[in-house]
Amino acid sequence: MAAIKVHGSPMSTATRRVLACLYEKELDFQFVPINMAAGEHKSENFLALNPFGQLPAFEDGDLKLFESRAVTHYLAHEYADKGTQLLIAGSNKEAAILDLWTEVEGQRFNAPSSAIGWELFYKPFFGMATDAAVVEENEGLLGKVLDVYETRLTQSKYLASDNFTLADLYHLPNIECLLATPAKKLFESRPHVSAWVKEITARPAWSKVLAMPKH
Amino acid sequence: MAAIKVHGSPMSTATRRVLACLYEKELDFQFVPINMAAGEHKSENFLALNPFGQLPAFEDGDLKLFESRAVTHYLAHEYADKGTQLLIAGSNKEAAILDLWTEVEGQRFNAPSSAIGWELFYKPFFGMATDAAVVEENEGLLGKVLDVYETRLTQSKYLASDNFTLADLYHLPNIECLLATPAKKLFESRPHVSAWVKEITARPAWSKVLAMPKH
Ligand SMILES: N[C@@H](CCC(=O)N[C@@H](CS)C(=O)NCC(=O)O)C(=O)O
Ligand SMILES: N[C@@H](CCC(=O)N[C@@H](CS)C(=O)NCC(=O)O)C(=O)O
Repeated sequence: MAAIKVHGSPMSTATRRVLACLYEKELDFQFVPINMAAGEHKSENFLALNPFGQLPAFEDGDLKLFESRAVTHYLAHEYADKGTQLLIAGSNKEAAILDLWTEVEGQRFNAPSSAIGWELFYKPFFGMATDAAVVEENEGLLGKVLDVYETRLTQSKYLASDNFTLADLYHLPNIECLLATPAKKLFESRPHVSAWVKEITARPAWSKVLAMPKH
Repeated sequence: MAAIKVHGSPMSTATRRVLACLYEKELDFQFVPINMAAGEHKSENFLALNPFGQLPAFEDGDLKLFESRAVTHYLAHEYADKGTQLLIAGSNKEAAILDLWTEVEGQRFNAPSSAIGWELFYKPFFGMATDAAVVEENEGLLGKVLDVYETRLTQSKYLASDNFTLADLYHLPNIECLLATPAKKLFESRPHVSAWVKEITARPAWSKVLAMPKH
């Protein structure tokens, strides 16, 4: 039995962040599907793994973790010699550039892209009405973030360096979601962002995440 | 001249996060005041340091950084042997617990506490009207986060371990702001959270941040 267990849903963006990392690292793991519709993420068993009652939760032997970015950060360090090198090896000064761009994702890209994904992808899926004002406001915010990315991606092939790192990987779940909505224009209208999106969504590890059976 | 420069405002929460870390680490630095009222953070010079046009920006010799949490993370690693040890030394599994709680701050505590601080502290200060509905919604969200902290703080003295770490430090600026508003009841009504708030806001490094001249 695999020591690594991911409790989550293959449709959840935060779960997908962890799955993408596991496939990049070519690690064996056990996937434990959690049925959100049945409220399994609010059960006592699940709350013991993540007291916030959200997907995913993660185990590696004795270690219990949650927060998708903390999990991937752990995996990248603990299994540094396996699969894709997702970190910047080198001095603290070099590594700081990776921290910078992972923070930009978490503090600047995540909120507006999640809000748009909720309005344009998940709400229609659940038969709920989209709030056009929320979409417009967040498209404005996201556009400003992507303007900075457009300039950044003229300086390096990926966000943190010329290699694919955690900073790029963190963006995949929300980008995939927005690509299925009219908000994809925000990527397509910026040539360097558009090329970067094509490149990172074409990674074999990401295809494996998308190919997982939707329980 | 000090190699470390912080460009910011002693009133800005994100700037204060970096300043608290510098004082904990007992590092020499040069503080470059940025006048937000005069729009200095949107000037070409400042945008070259932080393309998002927000405080703070940071330099250590050749390294240019922004994002307050990325800066403090760098400082804690680069100057590991100076001042307070803000990291968890040990295996990747032990260090992962610190990442978990810094992520909880960034992804769960920061947004509702910033929203409440804006409504109850900064808006009245600028002569703007508080939106009671926004306060109520975010007090609900923050209360749920603090319920988890209340349980967590029965298990360890600080959030990530029995020692003060970056995870606690990240909370200081927003906590200080909320303590000056009626929202302080959210801390005071939870005994372990309340003791933790007293403990971390009493740190000498934090007093030094609060004592800085308000340019
Ligand atoms: N910051 C968390 C976010 C987790 C999260 O938002 N999970 C969603 C699914 S993508 C969830 O469980 N939603 C159900 C709920 O909140 O009840 C992480 O990155 O792991
Ligand atoms: N995620 C950033 C947030 C920076 C931030 O929000 N800075 C505020 C001051 S605390 C600012 O510059 N506001 C002015 C503006 O947005 O124009 C960080 O942690 O450094």
